[in-house]
Amino acid sequence: MAHAREMLDTHPATAAMDATALVECIEACFDCTQTCTACADACLGEEMVEHMRRCITMCLNCSDVCATTGRVVSRQTVFEPAMARAALRACAEACRLCGEECEHHATEMDMEHCRVCAEACRRCERACNEALSALGA
Amino acid sequence: MAHAREMLDTHPATAAMDATALVECIEACFDCTQTCTACADACLGEEMVEHMRRCITMCLNCSDVCATTGRVVSRQTVFEPAMARAALRACAEACRLCGEECEHHATEMDMEHCRVCAEACRRCERACNEALSALGA
Amino acid sequence: MAHAREMLDTHPATAAMDATALVECIEACFDCTQTCTACADACLGEEMVEHMRRCITMCLNCSDVCATTGRVVSRQTVFEPAMARAALRACAEACRLCGEECEHHATEMDMEHCRVCAEACRRCERACNEALSALGA
Amino acid sequence: MAHAREMLDTHPATAAMDATALVECIEACFDCTQTCTACADACLGEEMVEHMRRCITMCLNCSDVCATTGRVVSRQTVFEPAMARAALRACAEACRLCGEECEHHATEMDMEHCRVCAEACRRCERACNEALSALGA
Repeated sequence: MAHAREMLDTHPATAAMDATALVECIEACFDCTQTCTACADACLGEEMVEHMRRCITMCLNCSDVCATTGRVVSRQTVFEPAMARAALRACAEACRLCGEECEHHATEMDMEHCRVCAEACRRCERACNEALSALGA
Repeated sequence: MAHAREMLDTHPATAAMDATALVECIEACFDCTQTCTACADACLGEEMVEHMRRCITMCLNCSDVCATTGRVVSRQTVFEPAMARAALRACAEACRLCGEECEHHATEMDMEHCRVCAEACRRCERACNEALSALGA
Repeated sequence: MAHAREMLDTHPATAAMDATALVECIEACFDCTQTCTACADACLGEEMVEHMRRCITMCLNCSDVCATTGRVVSRQTVFEPAMARAALRACAEACRLCGEECEHHATEMDMEHCRVCAEACRRCERACNEALSALGA
Repeated sequence: MAHAREMLDTHPATAAMDATALVECIEACFDCTQTCTACADACLGEEMVEHMRRCITMCLNCSDVCATTGRVVSRQTVFEPAMARAALRACAEACRLCGEECEHHATEMDMEHCRVCAEACRRCERACNEALSALGA
């Protein structure tokens, strides 16, 4: 139901990079924004919230960075590769850190919301890295 | 590919409102955030950009309001109905204003990105209104 | 050191409402965004974090709503009063709810970061209500 | 009137880096967020808007990146240096690109809002670089 592909196809400019990699990156960023906001909230609701501080913080940071990166790469009228690269690198790092932390809670503490969130983070990390490759970075 | 439903199902708390209406609202908000960012950018790339000022502004506002509302309603650990209502009302209004403006450009000027964006706005306006109903507002 | 006033004075358009009320509202929104992000984080660091769930959530919501409202009212080229009103109402409500919760922790539990945050929230609630009055709402 | 210093002083944890550099970085990020939102809007209102496309885009990107970075570095309970560094680097780059573009319009086209915005961008670029140094990056 997302419209990223249609928006790109109807844009007056041609995408500055491979459109498939771009659409996947945009969708992964916005999905990860939502998933990380929800995971921070779910972690806050856990009985052992005092053990979730790092996970909550990584999720809040990752949600913010993904939202910003999804917007930066959505802007194609004047596409500045240096800006896109800087945002994509920060986003891949945020997703890596958050994905590792969530993976840890999924495995050790059997937290299902962290398993889903780790999946969204890994997908987004991969999509950012592929967008970086497509940009020749 | 979005994870809103899975995140809700694995959350330690039960959703404070009808889960189907909530998931649709969350997904519509994040989709509309992206679509409006992309439409503002596409409008900026149009040759007749001097006629697109209102559309760009409505899109930028709507993108921001949808991002915030999508986050507010994603938070279910401590769900404050008064907060949710206030955000949902602002979002329904932002989507109504942006949807009307985009519809106008879609019809009169045959701008396809505005047609797609109007669709995302109307979906999100409807989802916010249905979430308001589910909240008894 | 904030530039809201200078940006308004150098804008090609005339502000759509009383400039003093507008500048105070913009500055209060961005200050409250930061303060609420910091207070959510400080609450998360408290030993009794399990008693801070509502405060953390109100702060996260308030930070998001203030950031969006500060942007919406900063946009003066095409100022749509219906949009501004909807955002300002949501923001006044977010600040009221967050301010009350923080005030409670400041008074009952002597939490100084909550006292500072309550102050930022009350200032922003007042500024939003005064902007609404200036808009004739 | 900003509360970043007070929030840091009342935080249960000790700041993970030099507090003066941190407060300046937080304040510069939130100031630059607002200034860039306002400059994008002012540029959109210029008669020669067709020459302002790059400036509007750099301002929108910079506003988003600064908002995210200001939040990431405001979070001190669990401070992850790798996350802070990634965000600060993206922010320094966004501010450099936006500051250069705005400086150009300030000098060549005598646009006062671009002059103010270039100043906010340069201050924020410097503050991010100093925070990076304070982090030993």
